[in-house]
Amino acid sequence: MNNTKWVLKARPSGGVAATDLELVDDAIRSPGQGEILVRNIYLSLDPTNRLWMSDRDQYLAPVGLGSVMRGITVGVVEQSRSERFASGDVVSLAEGGWQAFSTVSEKMATRILRLDGVPLSAYLSVLGPTGYTAYFGIEDICRPMAGEVVVVSAAAGAVGSVAGQLAKLRGARVFGVAGGAAKCGWLLDELGFDAAINYRSEAVGERLDTLCAAGIDVNFENVGGPIMEAVFSRMRENGRMALCGMISAYNNDGPMAGPSDFGRILMKRLLVRGFVVIDYVRRFKEAQAELSRLVAEGRLVWKDHVVDGLGSAVSALDILFSGANNGKLIVRVSDG
Amino acid sequence: MNNTKWVLKARPSGGVAATDLELVDDAIRSPGQGEILVRNIYLSLDPTNRLWMSDRDQYLAPVGLGSVMRGITVGVVEQSRSERFASGDVVSLAEGGWQAFSTVSEKMATRILRLDGVPLSAYLSVLGPTGYTAYFGIEDICRPMAGEVVVVSAAAGAVGSVAGQLAKLRGARVFGVAGGAAKCGWLLDELGFDAAINYRSEAVGERLDTLCAAGIDVNFENVGGPIMEAVFSRMRENGRMALCGMISAYNNDGPMAGPSDFGRILMKRLLVRGFVVIDYVRRFKEAQAELSRLVAEGRLVWKDHVVDGLGSAVSALDILFSGANNGKLIVRVSDG
Repeated sequence: MNNTKWVLKARPSGGVAATDLELVDDAIRSPGQGEILVRNIYLSLDPTNRLWMSDRDQYLAPVGLGSVMRGITVGVVEQSRSERFASGDVVSLAEGGWQAFSTVSEKMATRILRLDGVPLSAYLSVLGPTGYTAYFGIEDICRPMAGEVVVVSAAAGAVGSVAGQLAKLRGARVFGVAGGAAKCGWLLDELGFDAAINYRSEAVGERLDTLCAAGIDVNFENVGGPIMEAVFSRMRENGRMALCGMISAYNNDGPMAGPSDFGRILMKRLLVRGFVVIDYVRRFKEAQAELSRLVAEGRLVWKDHVVDGLGSAVSALDILFSGANNGKLIVRVSDG
Repeated sequence: MNNTKWVLKARPSGGVAATDLELVDDAIRSPGQGEILVRNIYLSLDPTNRLWMSDRDQYLAPVGLGSVMRGITVGVVEQSRSERFASGDVVSLAEGGWQAFSTVSEKMATRILRLDGVPLSAYLSVLGPTGYTAYFGIEDICRPMAGEVVVVSAAAGAVGSVAGQLAKLRGARVFGVAGGAAKCGWLLDELGFDAAINYRSEAVGERLDTLCAAGIDVNFENVGGPIMEAVFSRMRENGRMALCGMISAYNNDGPMAGPSDFGRILMKRLLVRGFVVIDYVRRFKEAQAELSRLVAEGRLVWKDHVVDGLGSAVSALDILFSGANNGKLIVRVSDG
């Protein structure tokens, strides 16, 4: 039995081209002492994957040319030379990679304790890294208080949708910015957002002026560019911005522009904080416990957008940038 | 006996022109119940005065045209209809104004408990608002740890010089950016900074590359513009920027530009926080106690640049923008 894996061949220019990665067959490496062999079941696709393919200065080392593409997976242990794991254990791998099988140190694996009735894919979304991202951005940086105005961009995305719900659970007024009527309807009808702004058909700034003339307390920012500008320029005293992503800039090289009036940070005494979920690894258990509780109680809604087959990973990634995904984008690598 | 006061006549365009304010005589208003009449001895001149003269969106209401110019003073109580103060008490007035006498509510006055051998002017500098600003910026936002690299801009200024020394006391490596060899010499020889960069004769970025090739942990930012850009673009993981001022932009209208690569906040997980000392009013006692202790122990160096006569206030303000002041800029309004 062979491994199949996506290898990075070239740094993309603009969107990821089919030729930037290559799907290759390779031998499966047998686990050494303290290692496990995992058959990947699901692979997470995230906007940040595009950053990892570039050689820009970023929060992790870029994926090396010729290396297997980095990615988070969940799967099942097929062979174990670890005392911590046994064959059949279901695990999450922070660096499972875009491949059918991963041979990794036991230190890189986390056992998944599944909740009844929750699909395994959820451990890459609401109960996985994107859920954790939302949790720490809201609980550690934004900390919205009851009645405060929170604006979430990419609000129907895997992170934004959970972030907005967590803000609602804290009693905030939550407005989401998303692309398209269907996504906006989902935010309003199923997630309980107070308003949804369709940036494809509405002027975001004007709509915000109507919704919250007194200004914005919290911005959970995933997009950057003109949407961030519209929100930032309406931040009010003691506002907080959790800078979680700037997807609008990932397909370009060079600097990622910020708000035109940086001085607003001074005048309104804003807090702007960039973060990446891996900074919080020591608190993952806290996030897992809290998000699991909310899911078990039926208080968090989420949606996974699963595409079939490792071979479709490269073409699927583009969906994130066009906004055509409908929930957390996940590749089914093998049957669960 | 009359009052003399500076009244704002016009919003400055660019630097403050002599005709933007007018020195007028007026009757002294007798204190009502709960009020005190204070003869001002010193008036603080600060870069932020220029903001208050403008009608841009800022952290306080702009000074109204026709109103006495806002300013912080220290003085002596001449008449009291307050049970908290008696004639002869020495007080600090957050809004004493650019005038010889101030009639204010007792709530707007703070009694000064003078340390032996410390001149009264120090209660507008190291033991006053600029000292507090440095204290909260360092202790609440920057929180440098031993061995971390701290860069302070306008480092020979009233705030920067104290901020740098407080960072040194926490064991950080402190680099100051200042204008001119004399200021840089003062930072090195008397304040114990680890390096001083003369932005008038040196390329700030290149010098920083030599001093701290691995990057900067903390930026205590007072200036904005190209100096901020040079520092910000070298901030490293988990860096903190206390945005205290952007003096380079105060003489212009319109937005205050920020760093070219805002995305660095995300990639390096930076914290950027704007602050104004009045946000910390409930913790002023803590700052006063700590700064007084350091002054009494001879562990803080400061310098007051005192100009004589209320009539010179407008022309003196320009000194802050040319950088010709040599320490905290203060106007002697009357004899102590």
